[in-house]
Amino acid sequence: MDILGKGIVTLRDIATRTGFSMNTVSLALRDSPRITPETRDKIRSAAAELRYVPNHVAKSLVSRETRTIGLVLTDILNPTLTHTAQAVEKALAEKGYGTLFATSNNTLEEEIRVVDMFRSRQVDGILIYPTRHRELAHLRPLRKANFPLVLLIADPDAGIDGVSVDDRSGGFRATRYLIGRGHRRIGFLDASHRNGNDEKLEGYQQALAEAGMAFDPDLVVPTTGHYARHGYFALDEMMNRPGPPTAIFTDNDSLALGALRWCHKHGVRVPDDLAIMGYDNIAFTEFGEPPLSTINYDVDAVSRLAVDRLMDLIGAGDVLPAPRVTLIDPELIIREST
Amino acid sequence: MDILGKGIVTLRDIATRTGFSMNTVSLALRDSPRITPETRDKIRSAAAELRYVPNHVAKSLVSRETRTIGLVLTDILNPTLTHTAQAVEKALAEKGYGTLFATSNNTLEEEIRVVDMFRSRQVDGILIYPTRHRELAHLRPLRKANFPLVLLIADPDAGIDGVSVDDRSGGFRATRYLIGRGHRRIGFLDASHRNGNDEKLEGYQQALAEAGMAFDPDLVVPTTGHYARHGYFALDEMMNRPGPPTAIFTDNDSLALGALRWCHKHGVRVPDDLAIMGYDNIAFTEFGEPPLSTINYDVDAVSRLAVDRLMDLIGAGDVLPAPRVTLIDPELIIREST
Repeated sequence: MDILGKGIVTLRDIATRTGFSMNTVSLALRDSPRITPETRDKIRSAAAELRYVPNHVAKSLVSRETRTIGLVLTDILNPTLTHTAQAVEKALAEKGYGTLFATSNNTLEEEIRVVDMFRSRQVDGILIYPTRHRELAHLRPLRKANFPLVLLIADPDAGIDGVSVDDRSGGFRATRYLIGRGHRRIGFLDASHRNGNDEKLEGYQQALAEAGMAFDPDLVVPTTGHYARHGYFALDEMMNRPGPPTAIFTDNDSLALGALRWCHKHGVRVPDDLAIMGYDNIAFTEFGEPPLSTINYDVDAVSRLAVDRLMDLIGAGDVLPAPRVTLIDPELIIREST
Repeated sequence: MDILGKGIVTLRDIATRTGFSMNTVSLALRDSPRITPETRDKIRSAAAELRYVPNHVAKSLVSRETRTIGLVLTDILNPTLTHTAQAVEKALAEKGYGTLFATSNNTLEEEIRVVDMFRSRQVDGILIYPTRHRELAHLRPLRKANFPLVLLIADPDAGIDGVSVDDRSGGFRATRYLIGRGHRRIGFLDASHRNGNDEKLEGYQQALAEAGMAFDPDLVVPTTGHYARHGYFALDEMMNRPGPPTAIFTDNDSLALGALRWCHKHGVRVPDDLAIMGYDNIAFTEFGEPPLSTINYDVDAVSRLAVDRLMDLIGAGDVLPAPRVTLIDPELIIREST
């Protein structure tokens, strides 16, 4: 077996090709300021031409360590997920790890594919927002095989490590707050049910039940997506049903911004005619007219705790400790839309 | 040299470990519906335990083909870049390629690092938004070595393939439109100059010159970042200088939304007191109050042309054709903010 032996290009090969010393080649490839840009370019050109690879792949086949982590997002257009991605990348860089991202586009099929892609690129661990919080059959084998894996959802029954904002509590707090402001008809724009992710809906129902209010299915409208336009059309549907709400809670802030736009278009005053409560606290909420009340998705806490846990798992060696699930109780952010 | 030989785990090893036939193992690993979920889980667990890798890495060391492309973004929080990332991923998936993303966080140092990370993960090609449009010394050696690489900026002098919206034309069109509406004091919130990327600024200056209007440096405020809050503070600075503008043009839509918020806070009516023109046409522009006029960054055209070009380069084999640079002339989108 010399598949690797045949293909491997060493610093010596680059030195021979360019006429520079091995020391110079090595410094140039590490972008040392001691090497002139001209020499560096020559050496890097030769290295690229010879298809020199900084030995990570070869090394990884022996040490199984690549110092690279894979992060799977469900949707790269979701500002909360990309904000988390940025924070995760920063936290990993501080620990000497590079981050590769991939997206599942909210489908289980693509999720399976990108997890395999990461595995075949030999990442040292994976952080993942699963598409369906209850369908983890493709991930359990990795955990069972002691592969470092942390979910960015938190299901105590998953049997896999997880770190997340407690969405059930978030849904509960948002709804309880609106009830406390005197609202009796509270709508929910639900983007998650179709993927079987009912945490926020359950929190909403729990708050109603606790206040002795009946659950009215007419006040829950499933959206056809996660973006502002989906919020616009879902609210349009809800407001045209009998007994429209005086307040709404939305699955995320983009939906809320779309709902806000619907109100502007239809002369519905916010919060006087309709109170609007978002979810996540993305940057744009502050720039809504009026600025949006919302639930804070604590990006920094989620990122830090998830990266710390992943590092623990990577450091644990061949047998991982028992799964640990961390739930972060989210804060209510009150601005001018409620 | 049996670095690889020692480590390699075959379907046979998994069959031996689990007691299933090699055929069953193979079907299970390909998620065939002919295999029960239970069997599939057992086989996938064993595969993961043995650290079986679907042979891509081993294969890639021979065939040099991974069917994976790396995409480098400057900022994962920029909605235009993530929108492009999504479109690129979709276009590549249709051609049978997976996409890995990485970000440079707008620093040259990280950009060099992530390009190396992609190279060492053996991607078949790279698409990249360079941080500094004029500092491509680290990328030229790749091109010289015939590595498939397409820039998502377009500099005819770069010596590297590129596809981009023509930002010089975008800056020109936006400014000329505002001049045509009678404005004589037109401000520019500039997020790009500090990275040496002056295309939009040059377009702005060109439109002024063509209309015989003097360039007033007081009407250009560099922002300290690319987000809404940076637009808010940059406009605050501009409006407190002598001779404030009656219209502004901004480097991107997030800055424009921040500027809009500043106007709401300070009782400045848009567009009556101040016209605002954004750049990119992100989804939130439609949901501004009022909806924002902007320049359309044609995500679909950029993605399609860049992916097509990358496929040409990958298909070209050992020697690439001469670099080709494609500029897309952007449209003006007029809404209610101008």
